[in-house]
Amino acid sequence: MTYCLGIITRSGLVIGADSRTNAGVDYISKYRKLFNFSLPGQRVVLLCTSGNLSITQAVLTALQRDLRTADCENLHTIPSMYDIACYIGEKVRDVQDRERPWLDRDQIDASCSLLLGGQVMGGDPELYLIYSQGNFIQATEETPFLQIGETKYGKPILDRLLDYETTVDSAAKCALLSIDSTMKSNISVGPPINLVMYRANSFVMKHQLQLQLGDRFLRTVRSEWEVALRTAFDGVSDIDWDHHSDNNVVDYHSLELD
Amino acid sequence: MTYCLGIITRSGLVIGADSRTNAGVDYISKYRKLFNFSLPGQRVVLLCTSGNLSITQAVLTALQRDLRTADCENLHTIPSMYDIACYIGEKVRDVQDRERPWLDRDQIDASCSLLLGGQVMGGDPELYLIYSQGNFIQATEETPFLQIGETKYGKPILDRLLDYETTVDSAAKCALLSIDSTMKSNISVGPPINLVMYRANSFVMKHQLQLQLGDRFLRTVRSEWEVALRTAFDGVSDIDWDHHSDNNVVDYHSLELD
Repeated sequence: MTYCLGIITRSGLVIGADSRTNAGVDYISKYRKLFNFSLPGQRVVLLCTSGNLSITQAVLTALQRDLRTADCENLHTIPSMYDIACYIGEKVRDVQDRERPWLDRDQIDASCSLLLGGQVMGGDPELYLIYSQGNFIQATEETPFLQIGETKYGKPILDRLLDYETTVDSAAKCALLSIDSTMKSNISVGPPINLVMYRANSFVMKHQLQLQLGDRFLRTVRSEWEVALRTAFDGVSDIDWDHHSDNNVVDYHSLELD
Repeated sequence: MTYCLGIITRSGLVIGADSRTNAGVDYISKYRKLFNFSLPGQRVVLLCTSGNLSITQAVLTALQRDLRTADCENLHTIPSMYDIACYIGEKVRDVQDRERPWLDRDQIDASCSLLLGGQVMGGDPELYLIYSQGNFIQATEETPFLQIGETKYGKPILDRLLDYETTVDSAAKCALLSIDSTMKSNISVGPPINLVMYRANSFVMKHQLQLQLGDRFLRTVRSEWEVALRTAFDGVSDIDWDHHSDNNVVDYHSLELD
């Protein structure tokens, strides 16, 4: 499995990803899932991938080939983030068209999804989720994050702490804790963690890191978070059972299903 | 969907459940999923259900009928929690045998799962998860909680805060926050919340409550938790980007897939 997330706030973008890939539980390996296609000073283009690895690698290779082919539209020439999302969607459709019949024949899941975040000079920072079918959605002020892969474990912390006005630095910390929560609860998501933070209108990828298993900073953050979480938990009111004693659980041998 | 969880600690048991059932997104209704089959002073038997409602209701009805039938083994006469788990597993198998051929024919999901928690005089408190196939697992000191239904959103808080030595009062609070996190992140899980707390060796269900939508206590707990969580979050170290600047995200137009 995989867990990638993207966050867009007023002040920038954050994208994070784990690096674990598995085919069943007995074939687990590390693959990078976060890629930087930026053109410093002009545009920032970041991609995260999840799903069938042969499909996502083929899509990345297609994108890379176009970059190297003279006079071919590519990630450095397409004029807007929206058009880049369309273009990547087309690449996904091309690969699916070519591979799906062979994979379907053996009931192999060919699905994939991608996160695309960035900013092209002249436009705003934007964040997209591109589906296996090549269509896509865009993150908005109301829902400023998008996730792919094993998304559920890491969603509550985003739902509780994030909104569009969150600083991009806090959004990065929140992304890291969301990934760490997922790693703790699900063994199919694992390090190294790749994380990037982009400040709106800077057109340079300045903040990026990779946290290996056992990284000192990652251990510090996890232990600080767990101590702080326990303090937070202890501070919440205990359950007031007496005030709710009229509302009883159905006593089954005296009542019918209601 | 549904979210139910059971927690067993040295000092007792906690079981909680939401009450939302849906057949698609356009048919959502409330059904109680937590049932009390206890015999005060002698045994505590609690059941939670998830999955196909026609199947779980049929299982509950079968359990209830045995309680009313003279000389029939039932939840009040079976001598241990383990044997009760076997007995309920048999009921699940009977219902599946009867219903599955008809549901399979129209590709309707007939699966169900149940949580069983309680204590029979002479034994310890025990907690089981009974699968759709009638087999079951038991919670242990190492993994003192079991979940059924929409389990992922509510798991991180349990992974971070719970162990077998947690007090049963804290376990109840933790269960409530786990259910609240799930409700906040997933619309298919919803109030009223039913929650029970059982103190080991008391053989009486004294602590139980039902929290309706908008319940004042539920609102208070949620807001206290969100404030405390934000304080906890603010206290965690900011990301130290500089110390990790050697580890860069793959710059795709200069590198091959590694």
